Amino acid sequence: MKRIMECVPNFSEGRDPDRIERIEKPLRDADDVLVLDSAPDEDHNRLVVTMIGKPEALKSAMLKAMEAAIAEINMEEHSGGHPRMGAVDVVPFTPVRNVEMEECVQAANELASRAAEKLDLPIYLYEEAATSSERENLAHIRKGEYEGFEEKIKKPEWEPDYGPQRLHETAGATVIGARMPLVAFNVNLDTKEVEIAKEIARKVRHSGGGLRFCKAIGLSLEDKDMVQVSMNMTDYTQTSLYQSFEMIKFEAERYGVEIAGSELIGLLPAQALFDVADYYLGLDDFSPGQIMENRLLEEL
Amino acid sequence: MKRIMECVPNFSEGRDPDRIERIEKPLRDADDVLVLDSAPDEDHNRLVVTMIGKPEALKSAMLKAMEAAIAEINMEEHSGGHPRMGAVDVVPFTPVRNVEMEECVQAANELASRAAEKLDLPIYLYEEAATSSERENLAHIRKGEYEGFEEKIKKPEWEPDYGPQRLHETAGATVIGARMPLVAFNVNLDTKEVEIAKEIARKVRHSGGGLRFCKAIGLSLEDKDMVQVSMNMTDYTQTSLYQSFEMIKFEAERYGVEIAGSELIGLLPAQALFDVADYYLGLDDFSPGQIMENRLLEEL
Repeated sequence: MKRIMECVPNFSEGRDPDRIERIEKPLRDADDVLVLDSAPDEDHNRLVVTMIGKPEALKSAMLKAMEAAIAEINMEEHSGGHPRMGAVDVVPFTPVRNVEMEECVQAANELASRAAEKLDLPIYLYEEAATSSERENLAHIRKGEYEGFEEKIKKPEWEPDYGPQRLHETAGATVIGARMPLVAFNVNLDTKEVEIAKEIARKVRHSGGGLRFCKAIGLSLEDKDMVQVSMNMTDYTQTSLYQSFEMIKFEAERYGVEIAGSELIGLLPAQALFDVADYYLGLDDFSPGQIMENRLLEEL
Repeated sequence: MKRIMECVPNFSEGRDPDRIERIEKPLRDADDVLVLDSAPDEDHNRLVVTMIGKPEALKSAMLKAMEAAIAEINMEEHSGGHPRMGAVDVVPFTPVRNVEMEECVQAANELASRAAEKLDLPIYLYEEAATSSERENLAHIRKGEYEGFEEKIKKPEWEPDYGPQRLHETAGATVIGARMPLVAFNVNLDTKEVEIAKEIARKVRHSGGGLRFCKAIGLSLEDKDMVQVSMNMTDYTQTSLYQSFEMIKFEAERYGVEIAGSELIGLLPAQALFDVADYYLGLDDFSPGQIMENRLLEEL
């Protein structure tokens, strides 16, 4: 599988195992699609599925799963702790291997177009696929949620990118888009003073004048007598993990604090760690084609 | 492809493209086998093929390639710069992913047994598959080469592990075995004094009291005005690349010399670099299952 895309749909059903199974079935049955994780949340009443696969196969499987979700979920009866505006709430496509962001934007448009027509569903495009800067931010689009959207969608500035300018009777509306994969990377500091973690987080993150593709907060780890800089690396191809790690290290030095360890949460593309090894070993001319498994992935 | 083995057969034909093609055909045609590299050498008159695949598929393809090579190569007419004792000279199996060394030893024995019977070929087992400590070393087995083996094989201590106690008329004898994959890793030092590289190489390698699975020599890089510690990491699962890198760094410090960079030559398993990233980031509880591509390889 030379070209790999990721898709992480969020469905508004996190409680009923039978419904969840029927929603996921088209994803699990699809050729050239692999479901890596299925995370239903009862409190949120929401299901997050992580899958990777060939771009075309992901799109086709996703359309079927949207159809299944719309048959299973009635937003008129839905409640849960997480903001949501539709039965199929959010569908981001992300590039993993040999895929450009532009192709993820195209995948988002194609799925939106097909789904709007087939399912009579209003659809907004977000992040890299957004058609205007006001639509880049998911929270901004979703503001008002399902209950508020009946009115919101009538406003000219909230005309959907695809589909009718009214909510689907039972499925609400959907947001589809394209973004880079997030790498969740936490660095623990050998101190109990949470202010130090917060100050370092401010320094390392983009909003504080730090790294372009890094979001960070500082927090206490009560069970460990330590504090943590908890980060979302929003584009590991441009801001590598070693950059935030080394930056935290040199910021921590002024407090006489050392790094106690770090952790990667969830899934990440192999290249994110190859880049780290490449930096620390000072490799000249390293090529991903030197990795045996990469060669195999190109062929399979 | 959950379980991956590597096989790197050496054939005694490095000049005739048609013959080489016919020898390689069974390897290239096999399902679940991927030829990563084919390196014919005219001076050596020798062909080194690097391939990975499912263990059973590798063995079957290899048996067919041995048959083809024996049909193509007449050792009575063979000359070349590299030591050799047979048409199919050496066949090592190495573990890459989710495969134990014991299974490579078993693969070596199975191939040796089948080939000896089918091709009427005397076969020796070496390295991890060796049946005695005298047979671990390939150079020791091969000493005397094809020309000397007609007499050598008659000695009781050189009775083959499989097959008849006489050379094959045209194909000589073959050595089959199991070993860890070699990772060729070079570290460049910012000095012109080759003695420093030689001294550090002595310190870092196993034979000099250094790392258990590290072979190293020091040499000059004439074109770069630098010197190099050139290493073969003989078991990256037990002696990681970062260990030799850090060891070279602290040995170089006493000479006031800095590391100028490093390079990886040829192919290596992904895990060898994940281990490097794991060390430098001080990762807690990192699991290879967190790598998206690893999950995909398990399924394909």
